[in-house]
Amino acid sequence: MKKRRLYLENTPAEEALEKYMAALAGKLQLNYEEIPVVESLGRKTKEAVMAKYSSPMFNAAAMDGIAVIAERTYGASEVNPLILEENRDYIYVDTGDPINEPYNAVIMAEDLIEQGEGKLKILASVPRWNDIRPVGEDIVAGEMIIPGKHIIRAIDIGVLLSAGITEVKVIKQPEVAIFPTGSELIEAGEEPQEGSIVESNSRMFENMVTEQGGRARRFPILADDYEIIRAKVQAAVRDHDLVIINAGSSAGREDYTVHVLEELGEVIIHGVAIKPGKPVILAIVEGKPVVGLPGYPVSAYIAFKNFVSPILRLLAGQGAEETKRVKAVITKRLISSLKHREYIRVKVGDVAGKMVASPLARGAGAAMSLIRADGFCVIDQNSEGIEAGEEVEIELYRDIDQVKNTLMLVGSHDLILDLIADKMSNLTADTYLSSTHIGSLGGLMALRRGEAHMAPVHLLDEEEGLYNIPYVKRLFDEPMSVIKGVERIQGIMIKKGNPLNIKTLSDLRRVRFVNRQRGAGTRVLLDYLLRKKGIIPEEINGYAHEAATHMAVAAMVKSQSVDAGIGIYSAAKAMNLDFIPIGKEEYDFVIPNRFLDLAHVQIFISILKSRDFKDGLLELGGYGWLKAGEVIAVK
Amino acid sequence: MKKRRLYLENTPAEEALEKYMAALAGKLQLNYEEIPVVESLGRKTKEAVMAKYSSPMFNAAAMDGIAVIAERTYGASEVNPLILEENRDYIYVDTGDPINEPYNAVIMAEDLIEQGEGKLKILASVPRWNDIRPVGEDIVAGEMIIPGKHIIRAIDIGVLLSAGITEVKVIKQPEVAIFPTGSELIEAGEEPQEGSIVESNSRMFENMVTEQGGRARRFPILADDYEIIRAKVQAAVRDHDLVIINAGSSAGREDYTVHVLEELGEVIIHGVAIKPGKPVILAIVEGKPVVGLPGYPVSAYIAFKNFVSPILRLLAGQGAEETKRVKAVITKRLISSLKHREYIRVKVGDVAGKMVASPLARGAGAAMSLIRADGFCVIDQNSEGIEAGEEVEIELYRDIDQVKNTLMLVGSHDLILDLIADKMSNLTADTYLSSTHIGSLGGLMALRRGEAHMAPVHLLDEEEGLYNIPYVKRLFDEPMSVIKGVERIQGIMIKKGNPLNIKTLSDLRRVRFVNRQRGAGTRVLLDYLLRKKGIIPEEINGYAHEAATHMAVAAMVKSQSVDAGIGIYSAAKAMNLDFIPIGKEEYDFVIPNRFLDLAHVQIFISILKSRDFKDGLLELGGYGWLKAGEVIAVK
Repeated sequence: MKKRRLYLENTPAEEALEKYMAALAGKLQLNYEEIPVVESLGRKTKEAVMAKYSSPMFNAAAMDGIAVIAERTYGASEVNPLILEENRDYIYVDTGDPINEPYNAVIMAEDLIEQGEGKLKILASVPRWNDIRPVGEDIVAGEMIIPGKHIIRAIDIGVLLSAGITEVKVIKQPEVAIFPTGSELIEAGEEPQEGSIVESNSRMFENMVTEQGGRARRFPILADDYEIIRAKVQAAVRDHDLVIINAGSSAGREDYTVHVLEELGEVIIHGVAIKPGKPVILAIVEGKPVVGLPGYPVSAYIAFKNFVSPILRLLAGQGAEETKRVKAVITKRLISSLKHREYIRVKVGDVAGKMVASPLARGAGAAMSLIRADGFCVIDQNSEGIEAGEEVEIELYRDIDQVKNTLMLVGSHDLILDLIADKMSNLTADTYLSSTHIGSLGGLMALRRGEAHMAPVHLLDEEEGLYNIPYVKRLFDEPMSVIKGVERIQGIMIKKGNPLNIKTLSDLRRVRFVNRQRGAGTRVLLDYLLRKKGIIPEEINGYAHEAATHMAVAAMVKSQSVDAGIGIYSAAKAMNLDFIPIGKEEYDFVIPNRFLDLAHVQIFISILKSRDFKDGLLELGGYGWLKAGEVIAVK
Repeated sequence: MKKRRLYLENTPAEEALEKYMAALAGKLQLNYEEIPVVESLGRKTKEAVMAKYSSPMFNAAAMDGIAVIAERTYGASEVNPLILEENRDYIYVDTGDPINEPYNAVIMAEDLIEQGEGKLKILASVPRWNDIRPVGEDIVAGEMIIPGKHIIRAIDIGVLLSAGITEVKVIKQPEVAIFPTGSELIEAGEEPQEGSIVESNSRMFENMVTEQGGRARRFPILADDYEIIRAKVQAAVRDHDLVIINAGSSAGREDYTVHVLEELGEVIIHGVAIKPGKPVILAIVEGKPVVGLPGYPVSAYIAFKNFVSPILRLLAGQGAEETKRVKAVITKRLISSLKHREYIRVKVGDVAGKMVASPLARGAGAAMSLIRADGFCVIDQNSEGIEAGEEVEIELYRDIDQVKNTLMLVGSHDLILDLIADKMSNLTADTYLSSTHIGSLGGLMALRRGEAHMAPVHLLDEEEGLYNIPYVKRLFDEPMSVIKGVERIQGIMIKKGNPLNIKTLSDLRRVRFVNRQRGAGTRVLLDYLLRKKGIIPEEINGYAHEAATHMAVAAMVKSQSVDAGIGIYSAAKAMNLDFIPIGKEEYDFVIPNRFLDLAHVQIFISILKSRDFKDGLLELGGYGWLKAGEVIAVK
């Protein structure tokens, strides 16, 4: 076993970047290259570009018509028209044709009266230079077309070419080497073995480099081998402007990155006070910035944004990155440590004119939270957290228009939400569905607080024997409706072939079980059934072991790390598990009436009623849809 | 001579697009293709993408540390530490390693006390599943990663790959064929002959197509030949989604486009009520949209935006183009005809919190106006124009931040403005210089109306024999300063070698002359000198013939369309002309004191004082710079 460095530093983020930039001072410089104008879209000029040709290059007809000698038209009028003769008094010209001596004016075609036999009648005289664009009218050779540090647009390309410029000096895109390291990594497309992880961070970096104006070169995966990593990094700094190593940036047994960089150059920072994203290495090797990024995708993303983007933009001659910001009310209390600045992923939505931000999973491994999120709620290092209902500033990475066209669902999870989300955007409408899964009751509470448009729920009222509606009556004061969703089957998911011979809930006492989180309708149902059968939760090994969605339960059963779990039929079917039904239930959408007319609600309802949706349900299995899309006024 | 169609239709723009879209109904459809995920940045998904693998794929260590059997840690505490033995009670694991039976929990390295000889001490017990990420915690195989119609980002690419997805179905980029036509056209880089025009519109279109999500294929220039154009268009509609023909869309003698399209398919619209941009052809050939665009670059640009972009975005599965808009006060009365919707190019700037928009050259040939402009002031077809001082909505095509960081100059023209503009943006500051040239007096008036930050002027007060300062004292009430610019030499520009033997202003009476526009300081100087010499303006052939800049005058002398013009030495030198000095003058910058502290003003002043600037002046020639950058308080 190699020596471990157990502890990383914990330098505050700004301080880390400042220290690194100070160490890099004088080492980061703009490079330039000359490229064809036709390939220069979006590139930034080095210096002013001057016209080589004037435009027009010669005195040119501004209209289709005839070129004349102005003096010969003098005296023409409506009462005293003049007849002009071709090749003596005029020649035909089209727009753009050169006008030369003896001609010195143009008369446009619309003002000519055809007389036949090469003769034309005019009813007015024209002055010299009439409808002639003099040489250089638009631009004169030697004048500036575009200044330095200008981002080239389509229109610039046109004018540059017409002014005789075919090559342009632009800022060279910084070349970035990306090294994925890790013996457990496999290339995308390779067959995974147990313990292997598909290498994907480098591909995310590649594209982030592109977005920041750099050119990425992604190297094949390196094994966790000190010598190999050292040799590769040493070679790469010579012909790249920046090198990224991912990961090995922490302090594990096989985290060689920091040792390699200490040997090759100077490590300025190892460990910063951001979460996720702590294990960052900021080093300099042969005058080039070399950055070690953490392995968890969310950490990697946040660390890249904090430490790679600013350097890259500097090298690419770009200003600071623009961050879209929006004020929103946070829906959940967030506790954060004074030890770091924390990036909480949030869904943001506009609920009746109020912007609300719902926090998502906080783990560094939760890459899906980054995909599902609309932005970050950044909690400063010197803050201990944010109270629910507080207004915060969100760093948005989605368009505000998209956020405003998003239907916000908070409540219980079902696979049909994916089905619906996929259909919310179509050719005629760009609307979106956002769903946060905190269980049925949690959803109703969020709805009451005005943090969502709808709550998907499946809550049985034991007294009335009815689903959902009794809860709505009890919990809300304002006029409410229920949009009927689906009937679905709950049950026990077990391994294919049922090797442990599980038949009823009582059998759960002798196997390893996984439950759903508190507040989930599925757990409410389980508790109800256990009570009826006189089974005490403590008797079940794993009752306290929680998973957040039906599919997460199914995946754990599938992976054999538990023997049984509770959930819906479609999840069991998706994972090819056996299933013991324990009850039917109604999964519906609770909505305040004032939201019913919103465009995205209407689209949502029409999807529930569509043929497409029912085909999707058939494929998932275990659903009934007789009433799907029906709106029932509750109060 | 071929038959001319003198008149185009004049269909209002909305109506034209509606008619065209109606005729295309059912003919425009989305195409799809499967591409590698690693190349999918920015593309739009066809349908939801589901995970192939779960993440994690197995129960995985969430931390670096040891895997243990939770039950064996029970009872450990600070007062009752437990000693664990390697390979019996624990094994070492790194973040991401699989955790298998019999191990069921992880203890992180920071909580371990090394005892040597394969022994570790712990001070607390851990529950089962401690610091283990269960299989599928982030995403479960079969769950949706991204929905349909989703634009793929860097983070999506990472997660797609890690979930086992290597190919993704996306909307195919529409293929656009672009045909430049015109016998007068030459390819960029070819040596121009008299009458030849460098083909550049197609290159602008190419890049506009890219910006709208299409893939452009630009064909070589076609001669004005009916048969060739017909054959090429007929072939192109087969393997492209849209065809652009440029130009020949008007009604000139060699404008074949409309005839070709009438033969091959159906012409829906020929001529729309927009200016510039009228000669547009909207046609359908074999079910494909074929658009004829006008030849003038500004017309071409505006017609593309109006009629090609909407179709292209539809074919690319994109929503309507977002137009940035800003309210601004227009600085000049604009008269527009009820015959068309007019696109006026404007410079936009923020002067003391007031957004002002100054109209630029209106001609269709003025491509530079499109480069210099920040946006369009669009005058509706049913409006006769806009009064100066009226607030209008500007369609911005520059970032509002750039607009706000722009120093607005209005007044007299000099070549040094290019020199300064080029240096306003640098690594530490993105500031910009905008200069509009309406002569010295016009500039002072604009400054008084609050439409600019500064006015570049060169105005001699004949009584005091002083430049500029007397005018400022006379015209302004508020505290003002003059930032000293340069001394420069005015004179008569003549052809190299002086073939007409011009020696004094009197000689102008026997040659062809070009003057500057009314209000220009140069013209004021000429008038003063003519008066002194007793020369009547009417005696000079071309006194009324105006050019807008020194360089435009020089270009006309150079092109031999006039024999002499008046202007500054540097312009004559740039065009390699001979020059007869007639006087020295002071070209300065008038500024209200309240603007002196603005960041971009300070940068402007520091440029005037810089070595770089003086090197630039030397190269231009004919300048003195003793006081450049000095600020003189005037009142």
